[in-house]
Amino acid sequence: MTLKLGVIGTGAIGQEHIRRCSHVLQGAKVVAVSDINVEGARAALQRLNIEAEVYQDGHQVVSSPDVDAILVTSWDPTHEEFTLAAIAAGKPVFCEKPLALSAEGCRRVVDAEMAQGKRLVQVGFMRPYDAGYRALKKVIVEGEIGEPLMLHCAHRNPTVGENYTTDMAITNTLIHELDVLRWLTSDDYKSVQVVFPRVTSKSHAQLKDPQIVLFETQKGIRIDVEIFVNCAYGYDIQCEVVGETGIARLPEPASVQMRKEAKLATTILTDWKDRFIDAYDVELQAFINDVQSGQLSGPSAWDGFAASVAADACLKAQKSGAIESVEMPSRPAFYDK
Amino acid sequence: MTLKLGVIGTGAIGQEHIRRCSHVLQGAKVVAVSDINVEGARAALQRLNIEAEVYQDGHQVVSSPDVDAILVTSWDPTHEEFTLAAIAAGKPVFCEKPLALSAEGCRRVVDAEMAQGKRLVQVGFMRPYDAGYRALKKVIVEGEIGEPLMLHCAHRNPTVGENYTTDMAITNTLIHELDVLRWLTSDDYKSVQVVFPRVTSKSHAQLKDPQIVLFETQKGIRIDVEIFVNCAYGYDIQCEVVGETGIARLPEPASVQMRKEAKLATTILTDWKDRFIDAYDVELQAFINDVQSGQLSGPSAWDGFAASVAADACLKAQKSGAIESVEMPSRPAFYDK
Amino acid sequence: MTLKLGVIGTGAIGQEHIRRCSHVLQGAKVVAVSDINVEGARAALQRLNIEAEVYQDGHQVVSSPDVDAILVTSWDPTHEEFTLAAIAAGKPVFCEKPLALSAEGCRRVVDAEMAQGKRLVQVGFMRPYDAGYRALKKVIVEGEIGEPLMLHCAHRNPTVGENYTTDMAITNTLIHELDVLRWLTSDDYKSVQVVFPRVTSKSHAQLKDPQIVLFETQKGIRIDVEIFVNCAYGYDIQCEVVGETGIARLPEPASVQMRKEAKLATTILTDWKDRFIDAYDVELQAFINDVQSGQLSGPSAWDGFAASVAADACLKAQKSGAIESVEMPSRPAFYDK
Amino acid sequence: MTLKLGVIGTGAIGQEHIRRCSHVLQGAKVVAVSDINVEGARAALQRLNIEAEVYQDGHQVVSSPDVDAILVTSWDPTHEEFTLAAIAAGKPVFCEKPLALSAEGCRRVVDAEMAQGKRLVQVGFMRPYDAGYRALKKVIVEGEIGEPLMLHCAHRNPTVGENYTTDMAITNTLIHELDVLRWLTSDDYKSVQVVFPRVTSKSHAQLKDPQIVLFETQKGIRIDVEIFVNCAYGYDIQCEVVGETGIARLPEPASVQMRKEAKLATTILTDWKDRFIDAYDVELQAFINDVQSGQLSGPSAWDGFAASVAADACLKAQKSGAIESVEMPSRPAFYDK
Repeated sequence: MTLKLGVIGTGAIGQEHIRRCSHVLQGAKVVAVSDINVEGARAALQRLNIEAEVYQDGHQVVSSPDVDAILVTSWDPTHEEFTLAAIAAGKPVFCEKPLALSAEGCRRVVDAEMAQGKRLVQVGFMRPYDAGYRALKKVIVEGEIGEPLMLHCAHRNPTVGENYTTDMAITNTLIHELDVLRWLTSDDYKSVQVVFPRVTSKSHAQLKDPQIVLFETQKGIRIDVEIFVNCAYGYDIQCEVVGETGIARLPEPASVQMRKEAKLATTILTDWKDRFIDAYDVELQAFINDVQSGQLSGPSAWDGFAASVAADACLKAQKSGAIESVEMPSRPAFYDK
Repeated sequence: MTLKLGVIGTGAIGQEHIRRCSHVLQGAKVVAVSDINVEGARAALQRLNIEAEVYQDGHQVVSSPDVDAILVTSWDPTHEEFTLAAIAAGKPVFCEKPLALSAEGCRRVVDAEMAQGKRLVQVGFMRPYDAGYRALKKVIVEGEIGEPLMLHCAHRNPTVGENYTTDMAITNTLIHELDVLRWLTSDDYKSVQVVFPRVTSKSHAQLKDPQIVLFETQKGIRIDVEIFVNCAYGYDIQCEVVGETGIARLPEPASVQMRKEAKLATTILTDWKDRFIDAYDVELQAFINDVQSGQLSGPSAWDGFAASVAADACLKAQKSGAIESVEMPSRPAFYDK
Repeated sequence: MTLKLGVIGTGAIGQEHIRRCSHVLQGAKVVAVSDINVEGARAALQRLNIEAEVYQDGHQVVSSPDVDAILVTSWDPTHEEFTLAAIAAGKPVFCEKPLALSAEGCRRVVDAEMAQGKRLVQVGFMRPYDAGYRALKKVIVEGEIGEPLMLHCAHRNPTVGENYTTDMAITNTLIHELDVLRWLTSDDYKSVQVVFPRVTSKSHAQLKDPQIVLFETQKGIRIDVEIFVNCAYGYDIQCEVVGETGIARLPEPASVQMRKEAKLATTILTDWKDRFIDAYDVELQAFINDVQSGQLSGPSAWDGFAASVAADACLKAQKSGAIESVEMPSRPAFYDK
Repeated sequence: MTLKLGVIGTGAIGQEHIRRCSHVLQGAKVVAVSDINVEGARAALQRLNIEAEVYQDGHQVVSSPDVDAILVTSWDPTHEEFTLAAIAAGKPVFCEKPLALSAEGCRRVVDAEMAQGKRLVQVGFMRPYDAGYRALKKVIVEGEIGEPLMLHCAHRNPTVGENYTTDMAITNTLIHELDVLRWLTSDDYKSVQVVFPRVTSKSHAQLKDPQIVLFETQKGIRIDVEIFVNCAYGYDIQCEVVGETGIARLPEPASVQMRKEAKLATTILTDWKDRFIDAYDVELQAFINDVQSGQLSGPSAWDGFAASVAADACLKAQKSGAIESVEMPSRPAFYDK
């Protein structure tokens, strides 16, 4: 059976997911979309060579009897509203991050989903679907390095514009680590501290760059994440897990090895879109398959909530300079996997 | 429009391609299959959860009005016959390697295709669809290492059974290099020599292992390919292109880097099926897309013929110990790309 | 002119330096030694096939008219005393670390040396003489990565005995980083914090292992050093310098690259003595040459003092869990280079 | 006891060895030198700050009663003569390569040495003293990769001048591999073939560059050596040994790893003098120590002869294009180690 999808929001990421579900993945087709800019939505569908109903209001997509499942790719402030609507309609929903604008908003989604009685929400964190992170987790789970004790991570990006501010290092950049490191370690954050190194001359007045975020987890694992969004040299995601008996490191992307001009070199990516491109496909295929099989297994509303709680603590720590606790309620059995 | 495929031969590789076209790729579905073992074919379809017409004779698949294009995955000795039948019916055909049992057989396919007037045949060489080889070719084509002068290659496999004989190092193993190195260098072989190193103690009486095959191309490039099918340590495909100003090397598959037990290590694959698994998907998707667009662009009948001519010269060189010329006619304009 | 050395203390490190000066390096010979165990000293000289005067008291070595320069390799609590004696005698002195048991003791040596009017002391920090650290510093100094902003370091050791306690992670292990990182960055520490990850099950009751030490420098560079003395897998020293435009990493020791048992691997050392073995030779040869040329240039008494001040702050931070300032006076012009 | 050395020939390499023996190594000093340019020799000694007797004729150095051992670093055509003179005088002699201008000349040295009854000659092949080659040999000898079956080697140099001709690829460049690969495999060459790839546009009219030399050894090992003296990108020595159970590769020289400008890179050397600089020290120190201990163990006159026989076969193969046998007599017991 082909899963009939409704997509709310046909901006850049919305169009990407429509293309993906229509021309790359198996088992689904887009039958309805909505956008406040209806003409733009129609034009996008035409460019993508797709026939689907076009609505102005996302709630029409949710309530359309022709739609089996929802993709929320609209403006961030509307994510919570449409996800709650999908839950109310009993329809599975894939919601791009952030799930809501605040931890409280995420909590409302969690509560609605639990009240409804069944897992219906997958949040758009794609890194757990990246082949490299999956290989890294396999090594940990199989005990090849013993119990994890420390993680040394880096999230580096070549350059950002003037509108990127200090807090966005948490909400736009670190947010991916906040999710994937919980998943990788099967652990939750206990406290967080942010330290600011000397600012790079490549930054601008509104942005302290780089930053280092230091976590302690419930199990006592210490995690340091360097966030450096004007690192100049490339888009480079690093994750090193130090265990009791060995160390495992996220694979470098495969690259032709060159001997040239007195250097033995491989290439570092420079565009973030290239780094996790395959993971987006895997992520959405998993959502489609999970909906078909009746059992969601990806990043849950709870995971969205947890990332939001952690992000709030990070923002507080940015301002206070102190070690801030991450006040995370314990996970309801509803979200056990 | 969904491309309706007929698959001739439902053995291991046939089932793999049926699964792929049905559950992974876009734009096609399998509507008919054939196998001399009709019950086996039915059972396979059931396991794969696919409904399709089942015939005993591949010619029924070719002539079925419901079938748009053909996949030939039958017993090697029947490849030529079914490919010729597809050409006669004017239907595009993807034929697993070998295209025919002899260079003469391949030539008959070439002649039939040219007589018919349109490119209808894609041969199942998947390495040109491997992301690593594509990245390597890009480096060459963009002139990053200057003109290629030498290639150092290796095709290593952990172990083979008693039924693998010395000539199979050419016909089963080297055959992939014979195709992909022509494609990589946009060149043709001029001569070939085979030398036999000391035989590994891991081999058996019918097999001289390893072997080294040395080519000169029309442009004067020298290629050495080590074939070592009992190398014990892994399945390891190497290709190093030495150009006038630099050297480019096929990427190592991405792998978690480990520090453990006094070693800094990445993993080497051991099963050939893992190495080019993605390339099979890309290869068949390209066939589907190319048929849809009306213009085949993959490995052609001519490429199948060229590999066969080269293989014959290699077999002769294995026996003679001398430098044997590769008697390759010049490519008809029909096969220009 | 051959430099005539007197060596105070003929234990393990003393014997190593005697061997080195006698059988490996140029321009010096050992003419006198002392040890509270006179017979042991004689036996050691015999084993090393060296003829030299043997005294019981280090002060006799210092005052011997036949001795041009002193090596202090005695019991730690006596370092300060003998170094002060050498200064008083106007003789150049190479003192193994620690220069003194306390920052105050180091300061006394500094004051004595300044009062005496000429650089006479080299402290036995060997890492600035390691080819890898020198190459790393060259990259920084030549501006290849722009201004350094962060350093990520690790000091890992396979295993330690029951007598190794939590504070020794600072005084015996981190002490090397305390010196070399000042030298590498041409900077001084401003504050320090110590965090304790989950303890490895390979540790024992008296030892919290691993530890992470976090520094801020005067210029605002942030340094994290992982100290992990029961890491099981090897002796592994890492240092990564993140600059404004690139990242430079301490070279891995050269090693045969192996493809074996499904791994592509190089070897990690397991014995610390192998890692900096060449640096000891370079360090002492530099002392000999510098004494001959009349101008000491290696790690100074001031560097010994600075390392001691930093170590004290680290020990305080271990206990307090807080960010402790490193109260370092500014460097007297006497120690400018 | 200090070994008193006489050095015949004070050109570039002679001065290097004088400097080395005087200012770097232990246990020797240069007491006499000769050069046809006596004034040049005096000036060189002065620059090196060394006092020694200066002669015009190398035979005066050999016969000087003050001289214990001889270094022959004169013009190539005189190597044989002075080495024979040293043998006649019963004095140990280190002779820079080549030992003689022809295999016959080398054989005369061998015969003279055997007649004299004691090993007196070390030939200046330094690669067996390189730490990388030693580590590679250790791996082989300890059986870590099983019996060696194939060697893939490369000798690459950035550029050569107009005076470098096709035969010099053998006599000046490959000569190092001819020696070190015999030592590495404990084997002798049986036959050799040379093939010429397409010539690089960076070469000139008198030089076919690159070349590939293919050997079969007595044990049946197959060796391919790429010689590429205008490879543009660096001075790069590669050696990969394929054994029955694994592959070992010569270590890359240690280098700072950089992330910069979208590349993850280490540095490749560009000047051959940097690559084996340490090996020269080790080589000469071994000669000094071996003379002191009365038992030479380095590359022997027989090794010099073997390299010369192999080089002659390579030159013949360059011209004939055929597989040429290497007519090597079996090694006299006199040269067993």
